[in-house]
Amino acid sequence: MKINDKHYRTIWLAEDGWSVEIIDQTKLPHHFQTTRLTSMEAAGEAIITMQVRGAPLIGATAAYGIALAMRQDPSDENLAAAVDHLAKQRPTAVNLRWALDAINRRLAPLPPADRTVAAYAWAGDNADADVETCRLIGTHGIDLIKEIAARKPPGEPVNILTHCNAGWIACVDWGTATSPIYQAHDLAIPVHVWVDETRPRNQGAALTAYELGAHGVPHTIIVDNAGGHLMQRGEVDLCIVGTDRVTANGDVANKIGTYLKALAAHDNGVPFYVALPHSTIDWSLDDGMSIPIEERSADEVLEMTGRLCDGSVATIEIAAPGSGAANPAFDVTPARLVTAFITERGVVAANREALSEMYRKAA
Amino acid sequence: MKINDKHYRTIWLAEDGWSVEIIDQTKLPHHFQTTRLTSMEAAGEAIITMQVRGAPLIGATAAYGIALAMRQDPSDENLAAAVDHLAKQRPTAVNLRWALDAINRRLAPLPPADRTVAAYAWAGDNADADVETCRLIGTHGIDLIKEIAARKPPGEPVNILTHCNAGWIACVDWGTATSPIYQAHDLAIPVHVWVDETRPRNQGAALTAYELGAHGVPHTIIVDNAGGHLMQRGEVDLCIVGTDRVTANGDVANKIGTYLKALAAHDNGVPFYVALPHSTIDWSLDDGMSIPIEERSADEVLEMTGRLCDGSVATIEIAAPGSGAANPAFDVTPARLVTAFITERGVVAANREALSEMYRKAA
Repeated sequence: MKINDKHYRTIWLAEDGWSVEIIDQTKLPHHFQTTRLTSMEAAGEAIITMQVRGAPLIGATAAYGIALAMRQDPSDENLAAAVDHLAKQRPTAVNLRWALDAINRRLAPLPPADRTVAAYAWAGDNADADVETCRLIGTHGIDLIKEIAARKPPGEPVNILTHCNAGWIACVDWGTATSPIYQAHDLAIPVHVWVDETRPRNQGAALTAYELGAHGVPHTIIVDNAGGHLMQRGEVDLCIVGTDRVTANGDVANKIGTYLKALAAHDNGVPFYVALPHSTIDWSLDDGMSIPIEERSADEVLEMTGRLCDGSVATIEIAAPGSGAANPAFDVTPARLVTAFITERGVVAANREALSEMYRKAA
Repeated sequence: MKINDKHYRTIWLAEDGWSVEIIDQTKLPHHFQTTRLTSMEAAGEAIITMQVRGAPLIGATAAYGIALAMRQDPSDENLAAAVDHLAKQRPTAVNLRWALDAINRRLAPLPPADRTVAAYAWAGDNADADVETCRLIGTHGIDLIKEIAARKPPGEPVNILTHCNAGWIACVDWGTATSPIYQAHDLAIPVHVWVDETRPRNQGAALTAYELGAHGVPHTIIVDNAGGHLMQRGEVDLCIVGTDRVTANGDVANKIGTYLKALAAHDNGVPFYVALPHSTIDWSLDDGMSIPIEERSADEVLEMTGRLCDGSVATIEIAAPGSGAANPAFDVTPARLVTAFITERGVVAANREALSEMYRKAA
C-alpha cells in the first residue's frame, strides 16, 4: 500500500540483489525508516525485536533469513541450524514454522551449491504468494461489508472494529483483516474503522492507525476498554481481526484482548470475523487451549514510548514505582464466538467440519 | 490507609480550620503531593481536573466545596449557585448529586448566618460516614475472600482482579472494592491482586498499584486486554470492582472496560462482585442504558504521562500523528453479569427485588 504516495511492501530484496530491506516497525508511527538485513542472525533479531511483526510477515522474513544463511554457508549443518534458530524467535505464530518447514523441504534435497539461488527464489515467490493471498481475502471479505452497507442509508459508513494490527504492514501487502477494508474504501463504499489501541505494544494506535491514515481510510482510535460500550450502543457493525494461529476446531489465537472483544460482539449480536491465510491454520492442534502463549517482558506494560513535544522519541515509566507486571501476549478466542473465517478461499464457518471441507475441496 | 508509614485520608480540614487539603491525584504515582482548596471554585476545579476522583471522594469534596462557598457568602443565591456549579463538574457519578442534594437540604432551611458552621459539620460528618461505610463494605466482602481461601491449599493466595481504582484514594479511606482486600491482607489471609492498567487514564497502574504497594498488598499490573486470558487459565478467583452509579434494576456504570471483564468472568464461572455504598444507587433510573456516559478529551487516549529516566514527569504522544480518538469514560455492565453487590449493609443479589428488600429492611 502507499506511504507518502510511494508504493511499498514490508519486505523486499535490496538493489544489491542479496540483502533484504524491511520497514523497521519499532520506529513507527514516529519515524518511517527502512533497515537492511545482511545475515540470518539479523533476520532473527528483526523477528524477536519486532522490527517485523505480524504472522505472515514473520514467515516471509524467516524465509529470507534462510536465503541469507545459505549465501553464507549452504551446508546441511547450517541449513538445519538456521531453521532451528529462526523457529525459536517467536513461539505463537504458526506461519514462522510453516515457512521454515516449507523452505527446508525445498532446499534439503538440493546439492548445497544450488541452495542459495533456490532459497532466494522460494522467499521471493513466498512473498508474492502472500500478497495474492491477502488480496483474495479482501475480495471475499468485501461482500460482508457490502451487505451491511446495502442495509444502511446511502453515505452512512459501515463501522468496523479491529484489534491489534492485521494490516498490510503485518503482511507483505494488503493485510488480512484490513484487506476487505482497503478494497471497500477503494470502491468508495464508506467505511469507518474503530482502531483498538492494543496495549501493551499499541499496535493499533501506532500501526493500524498509521497505515489506515496513510491510505486515507477514516478511522478513530479507542482504548481497548471501549469496544464493548460501542457495541452496546450499536456503533459497531462488524469486527474483523487477524490471527496468529487457528487450531483444527476453529479456535483463534490472536493478540491479547481479542477474546474480550469476541465476547462483547457475541453479547450484542455483532458479527465477529477472523481474516487469515490458510498457512495460519495449525492442523496439528485440536483446540486453542494447547497453543503456547508467549509471555513477554513486564517493561512493555510498565513503560511507553512516544513523541515529546520537541518531536524526539522518549520512553517513560507509567506505573507506580516498584509494582511488577505480567504480560501474556496472546489469548484464545473459542470458535463458538467466531461468526466466520475470511480466507483466500472464501468465507467459512468456524468449526472443524467446515474448515476441513473447504481445504479438501481446494486441494 | 498508610503512605510512608503515615496514616492519611484523601481529604481533610487543614490546620487553619477552614481550608481543605487533598492529595493531588493527578500527580500520582510519580509524586505524592497535597494541595489546599480555599474556594468553592477550587473544589469544582479539583473535581473536573480529577485531582480528586472516585465517586465517594467526589461527593465528599463537593460537600466541602459548599462549606467553602458558605464561608464566602451564605446567601440563598450563593447556596443555589454553588450547588449548581459543583453538580455539573462530572456527569456520571451519582454521589456528587447525592451529596449536594443532602447538604442543600440541611442548609437551605437555616438562617444564612448559621450555614457556614453547619456546612463544615455536615461535610466532616459525611467524610467520617464514608470511612465507616467503606469499613463495613470490607467486613462483608471479606467473607467472600475467606470462603475461597478455605478451598485452597494453605498459603496459596486468593487471586482477585480489579479494574480502575475503587481504592481508598477514590474514597476517604479503606476504599470500596479494596476494603475487603485490605481487611483480608491485614488478617494475614494471603491475597494477590491483578491490577487492570485501566486505559486511558491508567488509574489501575498508577493509583491502585500505588496504594496497594504502599500498604504492602501483593499485586501485579496487567493491561486491560489480559484479564480474559487469565480467567480462561484459572488464574482469577474473583473480581471486585467499584461503581459510579447503580440503577434500580442492578445495572452498573463503572469505568470503561468493566463490562468486558464482567463478560469474561461470566464466560469462565468467575464470581464478579461490585462493591458500593448505598449512596451510589440511583433509584430514579430504571436501567443502566439511561445513565449519561461522559465523553472525555481525545488527548487522554493519544497522550500518556510518566517519568523520564531522569525522574522528571513528561507527556508523550503515543499514536499515529493525525489520527483522532473517541474517549467514552464509562460503560454499563448489565445486572445479569453481576454475581452480587457488596454494600455496607451486606452482600445482596444484583436485581431490583433484592436491592429494594435490603433497603426496606434497613430503613
